[in-house]
Amino acid sequence: MRDPNVFDGKCPTRVVLDRVGDKWAVLILLLLASEPLRFNELRRRIDGISQKMLSQTLKSLERDGLVGRKAFATVPVTVEYSITELGRTLYSAVDSLRLWAETHLADVVAAQQRYDGTEGLSQAA
Amino acid sequence: MRDPNVFDGKCPTRVVLDRVGDKWAVLILLLLASEPLRFNELRRRIDGISQKMLSQTLKSLERDGLVGRKAFATVPVTVEYSITELGRTLYSAVDSLRLWAETHLADVVAAQQRYDGTEGLSQAA
Repeated sequence: MRDPNVFDGKCPTRVVLDRVGDKWAVLILLLLASEPLRFNELRRRIDGISQKMLSQTLKSLERDGLVGRKAFATVPVTVEYSITELGRTLYSAVDSLRLWAETHLADVVAAQQRYDGTEGLSQAA
Repeated sequence: MRDPNVFDGKCPTRVVLDRVGDKWAVLILLLLASEPLRFNELRRRIDGISQKMLSQTLKSLERDGLVGRKAFATVPVTVEYSITELGRTLYSAVDSLRLWAETHLADVVAAQQRYDGTEGLSQAA
Protein backbone atom coordinates (compact mmCIF):
# COMPACT_ATOMS: atom_id res chain seq x y z
CA MET A 1 0.00 0.00 0.00
CA ARG A 2 1.31 3.44 -0.90
CA ASP A 3 1.54 6.17 1.71
CA PRO A 4 -1.90 7.42 2.67
CA ASN A 5 -2.77 10.59 0.78
CA VAL A 6 -6.15 12.28 1.09
CA PHE A 7 -5.66 14.09 -2.22
CA ASP A 8 -5.59 10.81 -4.12
CA GLY A 9 -9.16 9.83 -5.07
CA LYS A 10 -8.30 6.13 -4.93
CA CYS A 11 -6.81 6.36 -1.44
CA PRO A 12 -9.19 4.98 1.22
CA THR A 13 -8.29 7.89 3.54
CA ARG A 14 -10.65 9.91 1.34
CA VAL A 15 -13.61 7.83 2.54
CA VAL A 16 -12.42 8.07 6.13
CA LEU A 17 -12.08 11.85 5.86
CA ASP A 18 -15.60 12.12 4.53
CA ARG A 19 -16.97 9.94 7.31
CA VAL A 20 -15.22 11.65 10.21
CA GLY A 21 -16.11 15.12 8.93
CA ASP A 22 -19.80 14.24 8.81
CA LYS A 23 -21.87 16.52 11.04
CA TRP A 24 -23.84 13.72 12.70
CA ALA A 25 -20.78 11.56 13.31
CA VAL A 26 -19.02 14.52 14.93
CA LEU A 27 -21.96 15.23 17.24
CA ILE A 28 -22.33 11.57 18.26
CA LEU A 29 -18.61 11.20 19.03
CA LEU A 30 -18.60 14.41 21.07
CA LEU A 31 -21.47 13.15 23.24
CA LEU A 32 -20.12 9.61 23.68
CA ALA A 33 -16.72 10.97 24.69
CA SER A 34 -18.31 12.03 28.01
CA GLU A 35 -20.35 8.90 28.75
CA PRO A 36 -21.98 5.86 27.15
CA LEU A 37 -25.52 6.58 26.00
CA ARG A 38 -28.57 4.71 24.79
CA PHE A 39 -30.06 5.26 21.36
CA ASN A 40 -33.00 7.31 22.60
CA GLU A 41 -30.80 9.46 24.80
CA LEU A 42 -28.56 10.26 21.79
CA ARG A 43 -31.61 11.07 19.74
CA ARG A 44 -32.96 13.38 22.43
CA ARG A 45 -29.66 15.25 22.81
CA ILE A 46 -28.92 15.74 19.10
CA ASP A 47 -31.63 18.13 18.07
CA GLY A 48 -32.91 17.45 14.55
CA ILE A 49 -31.44 14.02 13.88
CA SER A 50 -33.93 11.48 12.52
CA GLN A 51 -34.18 7.94 13.86
CA LYS A 52 -32.98 6.62 10.49
CA MET A 53 -29.98 8.96 10.29
CA LEU A 54 -28.93 8.21 13.88
CA SER A 55 -29.22 4.50 13.23
CA GLN A 56 -27.20 4.70 9.97
CA THR A 57 -24.50 6.91 11.48
CA LEU A 58 -24.11 4.66 14.55
CA LYS A 59 -23.78 1.64 12.25
CA SER A 60 -21.04 3.38 10.20
CA LEU A 61 -19.22 4.49 13.34
CA GLU A 62 -19.42 0.95 14.74
CA ARG A 63 -18.15 -0.51 11.45
CA ASP A 64 -15.23 1.94 11.45
CA GLY A 65 -14.33 0.88 14.99
CA LEU A 66 -15.06 4.31 16.49
CA VAL A 67 -18.11 3.36 18.55
CA GLY A 68 -18.93 0.18 20.48
CA ARG A 69 -22.40 -1.27 20.95
CA LYS A 70 -23.47 -3.35 23.94
CA ALA A 71 -26.86 -5.01 24.31
CA PHE A 72 -28.28 -5.81 27.74
CA ALA A 73 -30.75 -8.68 28.15
CA THR A 74 -33.51 -6.53 29.59
CA VAL A 75 -37.14 -6.46 28.44
CA PRO A 76 -37.20 -4.65 26.09
CA VAL A 77 -33.52 -5.07 25.14
CA THR A 78 -31.38 -2.08 26.17
CA VAL A 79 -28.55 -1.05 23.82
CA GLU A 80 -25.78 1.22 24.96
CA TYR A 81 -23.26 2.97 22.73
CA SER A 82 -19.79 4.02 23.86
CA ILE A 83 -16.70 5.55 22.29
CA THR A 84 -13.82 3.13 21.59
CA GLU A 85 -10.12 3.76 22.14
CA LEU A 86 -9.78 4.45 18.41
CA GLY A 87 -12.71 6.87 18.66
CA ARG A 88 -10.96 8.72 21.46
CA THR A 89 -7.95 9.35 19.22
CA LEU A 90 -10.30 11.23 16.88
CA TYR A 91 -11.93 13.23 19.67
CA SER A 92 -9.55 16.20 19.80
CA ALA A 93 -9.77 16.73 16.03
CA VAL A 94 -13.58 16.76 15.97
CA ASP A 95 -13.75 18.85 19.12
CA SER A 96 -11.54 21.44 17.40
CA LEU A 97 -14.11 21.59 14.61
CA ARG A 98 -16.94 22.14 17.11
CA LEU A 99 -14.93 24.80 18.95
CA TRP A 100 -14.05 26.57 15.70
CA ALA A 101 -17.70 26.58 14.60
CA GLU A 102 -18.84 27.97 17.95
CA THR A 103 -16.03 30.55 18.21
CA HIS A 104 -16.13 31.89 14.65
CA LEU A 105 -19.84 31.74 13.97
CA ALA A 106 -20.22 35.53 14.05
CA ASP A 107 -17.33 35.98 11.55
CA VAL A 108 -18.89 33.47 9.17
CA VAL A 109 -22.33 35.08 9.38
CA ALA A 110 -20.80 38.54 8.78
CA ALA A 111 -18.90 37.20 5.74
CA GLN A 112 -22.10 35.66 4.36
CA GLN A 113 -23.97 38.94 4.74
CA ARG A 114 -21.19 40.84 2.95
CA TYR A 115 -21.11 38.25 0.16
CA ASP A 116 -24.89 38.21 -0.29
CA GLY A 117 -24.98 42.01 -0.29
CA THR A 118 -22.29 42.24 -2.99
CA GLU A 119 -23.96 39.55 -5.05
CA GLY A 120 -27.25 41.41 -4.85
CA LEU A 121 -25.61 44.63 -6.03
CA SER A 122 -23.74 43.05 -8.92
CA GLN A 123 -26.91 41.28 -10.08
CA ALA A 124 -28.88 44.53 -9.91
CA ALA A 125 -26.17 46.43 -11.86
CA MET B 1 -28.31 35.41 20.39
CA ARG B 2 -27.91 32.48 22.79
CA ASP B 3 -24.54 30.84 23.29
CA PRO B 4 -23.54 28.88 20.20
CA ASN B 5 -24.34 25.20 20.66
CA VAL B 6 -23.79 22.65 17.89
CA PHE B 7 -26.24 20.23 19.50
CA ASP B 8 -29.11 22.67 18.99
CA GLY B 9 -30.66 22.11 15.55
CA LYS B 10 -31.68 25.76 15.26
CA CYS B 11 -28.18 27.04 16.06
CA PRO B 12 -26.35 28.25 12.92
CA THR B 13 -23.13 26.58 14.16
CA ARG B 14 -24.75 23.37 12.95
CA VAL B 15 -24.57 24.59 9.35
CA VAL B 16 -21.01 25.78 9.84
CA LEU B 17 -19.99 22.43 11.31
CA ASP B 18 -21.47 20.63 8.33
CA ARG B 19 -19.70 22.94 5.89
CA VAL B 20 -16.25 22.80 7.46
CA GLY B 21 -16.38 19.02 7.85
CA ASP B 22 -17.12 18.57 4.15
CA LYS B 23 -14.45 16.47 2.44
CA TRP B 24 -14.01 18.80 -0.52
CA ALA B 25 -13.88 21.94 1.62
CA VAL B 26 -11.22 20.33 3.80
CA LEU B 27 -9.07 19.39 0.79
CA ILE B 28 -9.35 22.85 -0.78
CA LEU B 29 -8.42 24.61 2.46
CA LEU B 30 -5.45 22.32 3.00
CA LEU B 31 -4.08 23.12 -0.47
CA LEU B 32 -4.71 26.87 -0.30
CA ALA B 33 -3.02 27.06 3.09
CA SER B 34 0.31 26.53 1.26
CA GLU B 35 -0.22 28.87 -1.68
CA PRO B 36 -2.87 30.61 -3.78
CA LEU B 37 -4.02 28.44 -6.68
CA ARG B 38 -6.07 28.78 -9.84
CA PHE B 39 -9.24 26.81 -10.45
CA ASN B 40 -7.64 24.34 -12.85
CA GLU B 41 -4.68 23.77 -10.59
CA LEU B 42 -7.03 22.95 -7.69
CA ARG B 43 -8.97 20.61 -9.93
CA ARG B 44 -5.80 18.84 -11.03
CA ARG B 45 -4.53 18.38 -7.48
CA ILE B 46 -7.77 17.14 -5.93
CA ASP B 47 -8.19 13.80 -7.60
CA GLY B 48 -11.83 12.96 -8.33
CA ILE B 49 -13.47 16.36 -7.81
CA SER B 50 -15.82 17.42 -10.59
CA GLN B 51 -15.75 20.90 -12.10
CA LYS B 52 -19.25 21.53 -10.71
CA MET B 53 -18.40 20.36 -7.19
CA LEU B 54 -15.18 22.41 -7.10
CA SER B 55 -17.04 25.46 -8.32
CA GLN B 56 -19.83 25.03 -5.74
CA THR B 57 -17.46 24.37 -2.86
CA LEU B 58 -15.29 27.40 -3.72
CA LYS B 59 -18.40 29.55 -3.84
CA SER B 60 -19.51 28.32 -0.40
CA LEU B 61 -16.04 28.84 1.04
CA GLU B 62 -15.92 32.34 -0.43
CA ARG B 63 -19.37 33.13 0.98
CA ASP B 64 -18.31 31.89 4.43
CA GLY B 65 -15.26 34.17 4.29
CA LEU B 66 -12.76 31.28 4.31
CA VAL B 67 -11.42 31.69 0.77
CA GLY B 68 -10.73 34.83 -1.28
CA ARG B 69 -11.10 35.13 -5.04
CA LYS B 70 -9.07 37.48 -7.19
CA ALA B 71 -9.59 37.94 -10.93
CA PHE B 72 -6.75 39.17 -13.19
CA ALA B 73 -7.55 41.03 -16.40
CA THR B 74 -5.74 38.59 -18.65
CA VAL B 75 -7.16 36.99 -21.80
CA PRO B 76 -8.76 34.66 -20.86
CA VAL B 77 -9.44 35.99 -17.35
CA THR B 78 -7.28 34.33 -14.69
CA VAL B 79 -8.86 33.68 -11.31
CA GLU B 80 -6.80 32.88 -8.27
CA TYR B 81 -8.08 31.52 -4.97
CA SER B 82 -6.38 32.04 -1.63
CA ILE B 83 -7.06 31.27 2.02
CA THR B 84 -8.27 34.19 4.15
CA GLU B 85 -7.20 35.00 7.72
CA LEU B 86 -10.44 33.43 8.95
CA GLY B 87 -9.70 30.36 6.83
CA ARG B 88 -6.27 30.08 8.48
CA THR B 89 -7.90 29.87 11.91
CA LEU B 90 -9.68 26.75 10.68
CA TYR B 91 -6.54 25.20 9.20
CA SER B 92 -5.22 23.36 12.26
CA ALA B 93 -8.61 21.73 12.92
CA VAL B 94 -9.00 20.43 9.37
CA ASP B 95 -5.35 19.39 9.20
CA SER B 96 -5.93 17.31 12.36
CA LEU B 97 -8.72 15.52 10.50
CA ARG B 98 -6.44 14.79 7.53
CA LEU B 99 -3.66 13.60 9.82
CA TRP B 100 -6.04 11.38 11.77
CA ALA B 101 -7.40 9.83 8.56
CA GLU B 102 -3.89 9.17 7.24
CA THR B 103 -2.55 7.87 10.59
CA HIS B 104 -5.45 5.62 11.55
CA LEU B 105 -6.46 4.31 8.15
CA ALA B 106 -5.15 0.80 8.88
CA ASP B 107 -7.08 0.64 12.19
CA VAL B 108 -10.30 1.70 10.46
CA VAL B 109 -9.88 -0.84 7.65
CA ALA B 110 -9.15 -3.59 10.20
CA ALA B 111 -12.28 -2.64 12.16
CA GLN B 112 -14.37 -2.70 8.99
CA GLN B 113 -13.09 -6.17 8.10
CA ARG B 114 -13.89 -7.46 11.59
CA TYR B 115 -17.36 -5.91 11.43
CA ASP B 116 -18.12 -7.24 7.95
CA GLY B 117 -16.83 -10.71 8.94
CA THR B 118 -19.07 -10.81 12.01
CA GLU B 119 -22.04 -9.52 10.04
CA GLY B 120 -21.48 -12.20 7.40
CA LEU B 121 -21.44 -14.93 10.06
CA SER B 122 -24.53 -13.70 11.82
CA GLN B 123 -26.38 -13.47 8.51
CA ALA B 124 -25.33 -17.00 7.58
CA ALA B 125 -26.40 -18.40 10.98
